[in-house]
Amino acid sequence: MYTDTVLPSVDPSQKYQPYIPLQFDGRTWPTRTFKKAPIWLSTDLRDGNQALANPMTADQKLTFFRLLIKCGFKEIEIAYPAASDTDFNFVRYLVENNEIPDDVWIQVLTPAREDLIRRTFDSIAGAKRVIIHMYNATCALFRGVVFRNSKEQTIDLAVSHTKIVRDLSDKYTASHGTMFRYEYSPETFSQTEVDFSVAICAAVKAAWGKAGTGDNRIIFNLPATVEVAPPNHYADQIEYFCTHISEREHVVVSLHPHNDRGTGIAAAELAVLGGADRIEGCLFGNGERTGNVDIVNLALNLYTQGIPPNLDFSDLQGVIDVVTQCNDLPIHPRHPYAGELVFTAFSGSHQDAIKKGFEDQKRRHARNSANGEPQIWSMPYLPIDPADLGCTYEAVIRVNSQSGKGGVAYLIKQHLDLDLPRKMQIAFYQVVQAIADREAREMTVEDITAAFRNTYHFGGSKHEGRLALKSFNITTEPSAEPSDEDETRDERRYFDGTVKVDGVLRIVRGDGNGPISALLDALRTHLDIHLTLREYSEHTIGDGESAKAASYIELVAASDNIKEARGTSQCWWGVGVDSDITASGLRAVLSAVNTAVSAPTTWTGRC
Amino acid sequence: MYTDTVLPSVDPSQKYQPYIPLQFDGRTWPTRTFKKAPIWLSTDLRDGNQALANPMTADQKLTFFRLLIKCGFKEIEIAYPAASDTDFNFVRYLVENNEIPDDVWIQVLTPAREDLIRRTFDSIAGAKRVIIHMYNATCALFRGVVFRNSKEQTIDLAVSHTKIVRDLSDKYTASHGTMFRYEYSPETFSQTEVDFSVAICAAVKAAWGKAGTGDNRIIFNLPATVEVAPPNHYADQIEYFCTHISEREHVVVSLHPHNDRGTGIAAAELAVLGGADRIEGCLFGNGERTGNVDIVNLALNLYTQGIPPNLDFSDLQGVIDVVTQCNDLPIHPRHPYAGELVFTAFSGSHQDAIKKGFEDQKRRHARNSANGEPQIWSMPYLPIDPADLGCTYEAVIRVNSQSGKGGVAYLIKQHLDLDLPRKMQIAFYQVVQAIADREAREMTVEDITAAFRNTYHFGGSKHEGRLALKSFNITTEPSAEPSDEDETRDERRYFDGTVKVDGVLRIVRGDGNGPISALLDALRTHLDIHLTLREYSEHTIGDGESAKAASYIELVAASDNIKEARGTSQCWWGVGVDSDITASGLRAVLSAVNTAVSAPTTWTGRC
Repeated sequence: MYTDTVLPSVDPSQKYQPYIPLQFDGRTWPTRTFKKAPIWLSTDLRDGNQALANPMTADQKLTFFRLLIKCGFKEIEIAYPAASDTDFNFVRYLVENNEIPDDVWIQVLTPAREDLIRRTFDSIAGAKRVIIHMYNATCALFRGVVFRNSKEQTIDLAVSHTKIVRDLSDKYTASHGTMFRYEYSPETFSQTEVDFSVAICAAVKAAWGKAGTGDNRIIFNLPATVEVAPPNHYADQIEYFCTHISEREHVVVSLHPHNDRGTGIAAAELAVLGGADRIEGCLFGNGERTGNVDIVNLALNLYTQGIPPNLDFSDLQGVIDVVTQCNDLPIHPRHPYAGELVFTAFSGSHQDAIKKGFEDQKRRHARNSANGEPQIWSMPYLPIDPADLGCTYEAVIRVNSQSGKGGVAYLIKQHLDLDLPRKMQIAFYQVVQAIADREAREMTVEDITAAFRNTYHFGGSKHEGRLALKSFNITTEPSAEPSDEDETRDERRYFDGTVKVDGVLRIVRGDGNGPISALLDALRTHLDIHLTLREYSEHTIGDGESAKAASYIELVAASDNIKEARGTSQCWWGVGVDSDITASGLRAVLSAVNTAVSAPTTWTGRC
Repeated sequence: MYTDTVLPSVDPSQKYQPYIPLQFDGRTWPTRTFKKAPIWLSTDLRDGNQALANPMTADQKLTFFRLLIKCGFKEIEIAYPAASDTDFNFVRYLVENNEIPDDVWIQVLTPAREDLIRRTFDSIAGAKRVIIHMYNATCALFRGVVFRNSKEQTIDLAVSHTKIVRDLSDKYTASHGTMFRYEYSPETFSQTEVDFSVAICAAVKAAWGKAGTGDNRIIFNLPATVEVAPPNHYADQIEYFCTHISEREHVVVSLHPHNDRGTGIAAAELAVLGGADRIEGCLFGNGERTGNVDIVNLALNLYTQGIPPNLDFSDLQGVIDVVTQCNDLPIHPRHPYAGELVFTAFSGSHQDAIKKGFEDQKRRHARNSANGEPQIWSMPYLPIDPADLGCTYEAVIRVNSQSGKGGVAYLIKQHLDLDLPRKMQIAFYQVVQAIADREAREMTVEDITAAFRNTYHFGGSKHEGRLALKSFNITTEPSAEPSDEDETRDERRYFDGTVKVDGVLRIVRGDGNGPISALLDALRTHLDIHLTLREYSEHTIGDGESAKAASYIELVAASDNIKEARGTSQCWWGVGVDSDITASGLRAVLSAVNTAVSAPTTWTGRC
């Protein structure tokens, strides 16, 4: 029984030993930057698949394979054919049904055992381009505990079985015309003495005996089988390997990082700076334990550095759908690029900055278009344009109790075309925050627009308040001849209209120095509503004949003492939209009045 | 409307600009290693909370705060008091209800605005130890687009409001005896010209005017507000800052990494190598978009390097339970250290290595105990001992269609105490794999033990096969006097017993050179079952008086041609356990016989 080896919790400094840093004077990777995309290999169908509680069915593997082709992968590890009939039969299916495009290399994994190597070759018979991938573990722990092999025996094992692979591949090339490449993995590379890794790979290279270039190079895949050190250490190991392996020009150096310390992405990136040519990984980081390195994440990291990754994730949701269905594992809401929350700003200051960023981008783009300059993406809090991944901006601004007025105003502008004045933003934000605080939940766009319509009696009869403007007429002088004098002169305006009050139609009349003050006078005279204008603004919505005017009104309680009225904290905002600018202002007045009189204590309606 | 700024998908090399590497000759971090834990600050209740679709209720915040105390955090950012009443009231609650231990610093965030700073001080009145954390954004994008401030105006803003914080903290120290520290964040540090960051921090330091040591040092928190470059770049920026800020000994350099590129953990680790003293983050990486850096991950990374992290995650599941309930976000199954799959090996070769690793550990621990040497954790594929996180080894070996015999054998040993011979492992593994392949799902421990009991008719009457041994007697010579000669001599054994066959009791007799061959003779003579022994082994289970014997039997079809019988591929395994070793062997024979006769075509039971 192994459970009896559980130790009492001890000081970890007694139990765990740190990684041993590499003494390496030739390190250059910290000064380097990314120049081009590496060669990608997807091992979703092999290393990813074997780590699933429920490995994929044949149908799921086929669906996933087709997705990988669509994304642009040219090297795909499809199976461990000697491990199970499912895997073997899947390889046969792809070969026999011509599922593999001519420019795609399939890769198959085999351990260093002759019968299993032979079984592996059986599986690929008839395929056009095949990478045979053989591994044996090389670190001291595995040599000593798992295989009880010396270093020499470990090298012998790799060399003798490389020769078997070479002979079989020559035979299958002769019989089937198959093009072969050979990949050798010193498994547990990152825990192996790096000089021993160089030595065993040099011996394998000699045994393989074919010093090719381009696609004919031998591939040395150097796994962080278990991630046991920070990523700078892996970069050191890779750069050391790259600078010490002989005939570097005939070798593809490949990475295969896992993620036990949560630094798999970084390890891959720094090791690419250290000289690696190729990365093996899985979409969204599936794989044993914490997973293989996430190729989507790596590719989009390059993308945002302006480097074409040679993989297409422009329909990221489509990729997510296939992968999650096949793997039966979720994507975490905070997973880089792919999680549902990663383009969302809840914080008010973030929302405000993004709002300004979009406004600035609009100006910049117009200017750059005119000058023929490129459109640069430069947006607060958004390192990538969601549109490049096939996403909309819907999810960018979401509102919770921690959000500010900026986000709320953004959503109102986006969904109701209303560009609220700053003070009205604050007023409405308080309405929203009170609801969010009270209900302790996220406010959806629907919640916010509904709250806006209810608060400001905006949007048709459904949201009508106690008072509604049914018809009106504005005249300058009742029954008087038009004057040809300057209209900005102190001319009176006369309001004459019908207002529905608590279901009863009332005719009201009033006058003032403009339509708004005339309406307020009418309300005072006929309905005993004593309110004064504090702020008014408007903007147009849309262009041309369909253009409308949106008006915003702030009212305060009327007072003989104007200074007192101006200083009051009690105020009501209103909004009105109409194709006629005068009507939009009058609607805004009624909107604000309705807000003021919605509490019966404010106004008893004793008209 | 901002949606009209969607661009057609363009070559990203036109749209995105790479980070600008720092020209920095003084870089030493790539040669450094971890020496001790940094100071930790949890911002779960502030930066984490503000990014939740449903921010925590007051009760949830309190539960989370108590968890942080229990884990050993000494610095906790609890709120943005000026942002909402919920946050303000939460601070008041903690202060007024003495929830804050005397050795814990609470931290509160405020923007650089006098009214909000005053509101922030209102919230903490009466607290013992408070870090006031003020921020303003410093990068060119924010200066230009969001605030329309020059560099000078940006510095002025920070300096003038630092003085307000200084004056208010002096006042509150005088009136309430509060101990204050000051933290300043040049927000968007990682996108800011690093010389400007140094300049603004130097100006803030001068304005603060208190050159303290230890807990009285000013804290400069240098956020990767958005992660836009690889982690080596952040390390460069931090080391540059550390080596260029004046009075370094009076400054705490704090990190606040986000994770947009999936390299937040690495950025924190490399920046610690670059000289940082302190890290702000959240448990399991909650926070805006892709989250803040995950402090659990960072702490356990140190732990596995033999460095005490000064945080206690020995009951990790308890921590997970509180955090997931408060945040209403899941932990991904592959999340480092915390995911449900991260200690699980499904692959057969991994399982085999872990099995050998545990066996080796048992031997090493016994040897080291005897010598008084430390017990080192060194286990294939397991970078940390699950027991150190309060986990069992239950989840380590799980079996799917990709698993090998090693994992299956491990589970049988763990749960049934049976150490199957290698050939029986292969035989039973084929049984399991056939089920897994057929059902396309993971095989649970229960599935596997049930399959074992059914296959080998093992474990009491419930699993009884067609034949069951009811009683028996073994004699050397029937009715003969005991011999005093050497028992290993060619002495015959006589089996005399009762076997239930398809429900009918049968008395059977036979003889051979041992009890097993005598039983096989009896079965042949009386029941027409012609089987021969090919392999037999046994081991004891347990110690002392309760010890039992487990026997394993391989039978093949009997043949006059012994060579032919030995070479047949048709064979049946059986297992028996009994406190009497002879009985355990006989039971194992019946077990194998039952397997052989379970298919009616094999044996018609014409006895």
